[in-house]
Amino acid sequence: MDQQVSAPRSDAPSESPFTARPVRRERGGLANLPPTVCWVGGADGALELLDQTLLPGEVAVRRCVNIEQVIEAIQQLCVRGAPAIGVAGAYGVCLGSRNAARNSAGEFREAVLSAAHWLKESRPTAVNLAWAVDRVAKAATPGTPAEAWSRMLLEADQIVEEEVDACRRIGEAGAELVRDGSGVLTHCNAGALATIAYGTALAPLYVAAEAGRKFRVYADETRPLLQGSRLTAFELSRCGLDVTVLPDGAAASLLANRKVDLVIVGADRIAANGDTANKVGTYPLALAAAAHNVPFFVAAPLSTFDLFTPSGAQIPIEQRRGEELARFGDFRIAPYGIKFYNPAFDVTPVELIRGFVTPKGILSPISSEKIREILV
Amino acid sequence: MDQQVSAPRSDAPSESPFTARPVRRERGGLANLPPTVCWVGGADGALELLDQTLLPGEVAVRRCVNIEQVIEAIQQLCVRGAPAIGVAGAYGVCLGSRNAARNSAGEFREAVLSAAHWLKESRPTAVNLAWAVDRVAKAATPGTPAEAWSRMLLEADQIVEEEVDACRRIGEAGAELVRDGSGVLTHCNAGALATIAYGTALAPLYVAAEAGRKFRVYADETRPLLQGSRLTAFELSRCGLDVTVLPDGAAASLLANRKVDLVIVGADRIAANGDTANKVGTYPLALAAAAHNVPFFVAAPLSTFDLFTPSGAQIPIEQRRGEELARFGDFRIAPYGIKFYNPAFDVTPVELIRGFVTPKGILSPISSEKIREILV
Repeated sequence: MDQQVSAPRSDAPSESPFTARPVRRERGGLANLPPTVCWVGGADGALELLDQTLLPGEVAVRRCVNIEQVIEAIQQLCVRGAPAIGVAGAYGVCLGSRNAARNSAGEFREAVLSAAHWLKESRPTAVNLAWAVDRVAKAATPGTPAEAWSRMLLEADQIVEEEVDACRRIGEAGAELVRDGSGVLTHCNAGALATIAYGTALAPLYVAAEAGRKFRVYADETRPLLQGSRLTAFELSRCGLDVTVLPDGAAASLLANRKVDLVIVGADRIAANGDTANKVGTYPLALAAAAHNVPFFVAAPLSTFDLFTPSGAQIPIEQRRGEELARFGDFRIAPYGIKFYNPAFDVTPVELIRGFVTPKGILSPISSEKIREILV
Repeated sequence: MDQQVSAPRSDAPSESPFTARPVRRERGGLANLPPTVCWVGGADGALELLDQTLLPGEVAVRRCVNIEQVIEAIQQLCVRGAPAIGVAGAYGVCLGSRNAARNSAGEFREAVLSAAHWLKESRPTAVNLAWAVDRVAKAATPGTPAEAWSRMLLEADQIVEEEVDACRRIGEAGAELVRDGSGVLTHCNAGALATIAYGTALAPLYVAAEAGRKFRVYADETRPLLQGSRLTAFELSRCGLDVTVLPDGAAASLLANRKVDLVIVGADRIAANGDTANKVGTYPLALAAAAHNVPFFVAAPLSTFDLFTPSGAQIPIEQRRGEELARFGDFRIAPYGIKFYNPAFDVTPVELIRGFVTPKGILSPISSEKIREILV
């Protein structure tokens, strides 16, 4: 993979207005973490992604200079997490139409639409991707292709700034849920590595830690791709938080043993009624939390809410390759000749969700009306 | 590990009365599977264990000629599954006192008690181990050490025969639950590889398949040691059954999608009130089955019931090393400097269990009285 380099970010030309990103300035307590998604250079720049498939063993950056590389990175989960995928998609539209910006308005327009189409197809469940891609594509008119393309890049930058701000606000809203001396359980990775900074589910933890509170974080390892042990434990421990990894199947007994005071997870899409698609394994966690009366919260930016999807039944669930379950690196862990069921997500019915932690505050109890209200 | 050899069983001396075991004769449709636990040779024989840590990639036999090797094999999960551990423990007592059988009655008695003690310590949760070990140890009197030791070996053989018979009866009792065209979900491995033949949870599936019924088996992969994908999928597919492996976290959405008509699992210990300890991840599965009104059955021989343990709260739960979650072969999957929560088992409260499938038939609905009745 020739787009994969381990070079530090400091090699980006420092005079470009695109290098001094709010991303970096606002990372605060997250300074120990490399940036997740980052445009470096100006109009001739590139999209740099922290390759999350290699963590925690290797910290390497993958540089994308064309849309094919962005789509491949999204599909391989080099970049993952609904908000981070959205940002990658936003810059992906820019990369996919950069060359066409020298051509006619018609050709440019076609390149933008084609880029938007293929990016949206790359992963179906997270709604942030479609939202961010469409927003950048809309910036493609009016004006000359060159003017429009510059505006698209600024629009992608704007999405970055808004996502950073949204995560910070989610953190501030949710920090009150994280009490001193408590135990907090999370699933998959909805942290800095899933966003630009702070994360969604993990943002309240970072803000609570900044406020001096001490608490223990339990991270489901999250099969099959182990985002919990590889990513959540990586980012939390790098930032000095107390983290314990457990197998997904052990979360219910942890709850039964009264070790957990709060369950908080991210979301890939929240339907109009509040049903929430998130990483597979979230739904059984919500069932176990309900069985032990432990509050179960979902943290998400507004871009994750999808009023056009009435309920969870209409959310498309991505099925991934059985290969993810059949082998581990070169090590075969299942016999040949069998089948696999490997959905990337599941749907947690709104009845099991105590509340949503959003940039506009905590929404609890949940109702369709309240969801509509915070979106206007 | 010099006790690990891949030699076929046929190299055992065929003239010994200990070589023609009922184990082999009664395997029936399981002929494609190598024996799980097998004493080969006569009084100077050895305990052969199919090394389950190497499956499905490698079919290798570990030969134990002393008690230390048996304990190591039990602790490393080379042999696992409550009934199989019980049988290994039974022969372990024989191996642990074989040399002392040439000594005085006092020394022999001490060797038997010491062997029984250390074997029972090797894994705390499964009650079959203590049950089988104590039973063989009780055969150490009366008579000379040599006579007593021969009787102990016959007692271990007797346990094998009874376990084979019990599994077959479990299969016949539970087969009625497995309907043609249905979907059956199981967790971990409670099959031929966890017992001497047929298994407990999987026995009804083998018997139903022998009766010509077609059905689909879903196997949770069962983190951290992947007994579902490595062992259950291995033995079911070798015997021609239709098997689909899924991540533990995907079982709840599979149930939500109405793909499962029956959940059936094994047990490591069933308390007097019916609370059941089984592989970690069983309890959340029972919660999900209850949420979708899918019957949840536990299959076990009578040796798994423990009237001396009043309820699940008193069952000791083995905590295993975090290393099982931290690495995969040589591949590091979690950062350094974090903690792990790695219980081997969890407890499913009796309220979530529709019934027990036992060698004496199906016990449903469950009550303490009925449990006591089947044990007398």
